[in-house]
Amino acid sequence: MKANRIHNFNPGPAALPLAVLEEIQGNFLDFQESGMSITEISHRSREFEDVINDAVDRTKRLLNLEDNFEVLFIQGGASLQFCMIPMNFLAPGKSADYVDTGTWSTKAIKEAELQGKSIAVVASSEDKNYSYIPKNILFNGDAAFVHLTSNNTIKGTQWAQFPDTKGVPIICDMSSDIMSRPLDVNRFGMIYAGAQKNIGPAGVCLVIIRKDLLDWIPDTVPTMLKYTTFAAKNSLYNTPPCFAIYTVQLVLKWLEETIGGLGKMAAINQDKAQLLYGYMDGSSFYRATAEADSRSLMNVTFRLPSEDLEKQFVEQALDNGLGGLKGHRSVGGCRASIYNALSLEAVGALVEFMKTFAQKNG
Amino acid sequence: MKANRIHNFNPGPAALPLAVLEEIQGNFLDFQESGMSITEISHRSREFEDVINDAVDRTKRLLNLEDNFEVLFIQGGASLQFCMIPMNFLAPGKSADYVDTGTWSTKAIKEAELQGKSIAVVASSEDKNYSYIPKNILFNGDAAFVHLTSNNTIKGTQWAQFPDTKGVPIICDMSSDIMSRPLDVNRFGMIYAGAQKNIGPAGVCLVIIRKDLLDWIPDTVPTMLKYTTFAAKNSLYNTPPCFAIYTVQLVLKWLEETIGGLGKMAAINQDKAQLLYGYMDGSSFYRATAEADSRSLMNVTFRLPSEDLEKQFVEQALDNGLGGLKGHRSVGGCRASIYNALSLEAVGALVEFMKTFAQKNG
Repeated sequence: MKANRIHNFNPGPAALPLAVLEEIQGNFLDFQESGMSITEISHRSREFEDVINDAVDRTKRLLNLEDNFEVLFIQGGASLQFCMIPMNFLAPGKSADYVDTGTWSTKAIKEAELQGKSIAVVASSEDKNYSYIPKNILFNGDAAFVHLTSNNTIKGTQWAQFPDTKGVPIICDMSSDIMSRPLDVNRFGMIYAGAQKNIGPAGVCLVIIRKDLLDWIPDTVPTMLKYTTFAAKNSLYNTPPCFAIYTVQLVLKWLEETIGGLGKMAAINQDKAQLLYGYMDGSSFYRATAEADSRSLMNVTFRLPSEDLEKQFVEQALDNGLGGLKGHRSVGGCRASIYNALSLEAVGALVEFMKTFAQKNG
Repeated sequence: MKANRIHNFNPGPAALPLAVLEEIQGNFLDFQESGMSITEISHRSREFEDVINDAVDRTKRLLNLEDNFEVLFIQGGASLQFCMIPMNFLAPGKSADYVDTGTWSTKAIKEAELQGKSIAVVASSEDKNYSYIPKNILFNGDAAFVHLTSNNTIKGTQWAQFPDTKGVPIICDMSSDIMSRPLDVNRFGMIYAGAQKNIGPAGVCLVIIRKDLLDWIPDTVPTMLKYTTFAAKNSLYNTPPCFAIYTVQLVLKWLEETIGGLGKMAAINQDKAQLLYGYMDGSSFYRATAEADSRSLMNVTFRLPSEDLEKQFVEQALDNGLGGLKGHRSVGGCRASIYNALSLEAVGALVEFMKTFAQKNG
């Protein structure tokens, strides 16, 4: 079964490794000789327990997590986390620091405020349309946590290093760069990531949580909204999104066994970003929108000389097998999302197309 | 690609129509000539909009819904609904009636109580281990809603008809019998159903809500926990579980186009249940556990003369290609879940096996 595939630069849901898709397809009617599809097996079966345990173990190995972290799978995306975080960790008397680096941070802040929680927005890059990552931030030493968005899918910026929070645990939305580089996890109280960009399909959010934070959670939080429920039952309190977790497991396996871990993945991601930004920096036709020291290695946002040319660019790229290059509707322009599953060859093909398009239209 | 499939009597996740699985498999690397998998396309693409709109339209046609109902897709399963319902519909001053028919009703009640909401448990069948559906219930005329669980997966009971609530809207958990029979939807304020039993894989909950109930919802409910968020954006406020919704769409298409609608589906389900209960009623070896007038047409719970025989029964059935027959761990015994996708032939094969097993061990 040979399919006519494109290079997929979508921002999420996004490209998955072809080998992962082929494995799912091959086993789809009969998973592990169970005589059932992965979509039909019980979440309490040995087969599914192997899937979820392997996904947890691979997450721990890839990120060098010690036993003081729990790895959870929760539905509802990062957007549900925006409300769960203050609900779980900001009991009366506690306050948190938030940094506003654009759309998703802004939403996280709004959800904390909607609940009447005490938070401080200690830095923001709103003054320059979120085109940079704030520096020299003064954090509150008594904050319960610092909330950051590691990569800003829409604005095209990324924290190259995480700021010194003087020991205050960071709670970080890594939806769009999870598993794209090694991390010093000891800086973090919690990491969360909607799977649909770097590690799987839509429908599951990976949550990595330091166990001592579980003690902060009030008993009055609804059962399905408290992390303790998921931690106590290995994410199997109720029926989990089995297919999405299975796909995550296969992507993590690909990261470990085919790519060779996050160090190797980060090197490939560096090469991809360098190829694309490097070409644009030498071009007068394309202009990368993020400030140079704040550029995302995952979502490369750029403009052409006119909106009309941008429209033609996106259309003609698709005709040439390069999809998903339109910028987010809230900011316009163009965007190439070059997540883990997007190969250096695909970025090379994009750069070649960009050269040709610039020659014709420049 | 021929797979070695079994008859799958799992309670959920459960059997899906083979034609649906084959369609997913066939298109898995290239959905609608997009050059991408259904797991890789944007939820804002035309292709996915067609999927979700078709799923909504088919739900409306199958259930004869008028325009006063919204059809939503929400993550988190029915368990998240247990907490969302009181959060959305029980503002201070409002009270609701709940009927306790076992495990899932009990959990719904606990989530309302955990939030300190005013509810009355107006009937319960706990006195006989939930083996029947309560009758002659006195509902409170000023209740905001009446909460029911239409089918009790674990206890094997089902409301054959819904009670007269004197105009108070019913909010009903139909996770395990949604789309198994026609409904008079005008009795209901809201219907919700985790997809993983009758209409899809795990990872999405179908929510059908009467529009006037949306006006009850306080502004202070977190964004991802209020139905208005989903209603305002056709369930696309954030990234939805695309693959699960796609599978639901295909199952609904199968229900409409292959089965011929809910009237025909109900007739087949009646035949299946009749075959199984009818055989057991004439047997002294097997004993159906639910009271006769409360029997579920979806989950047939039964006992054998001993726990040892039950264990052998489940094991030997699997050896004979009949899977998932173990009762829920909280009640023991055996259970055959015979949802929509389970054919009359599969139930016939089960009855033949039951006869043979009884002859050998009776």
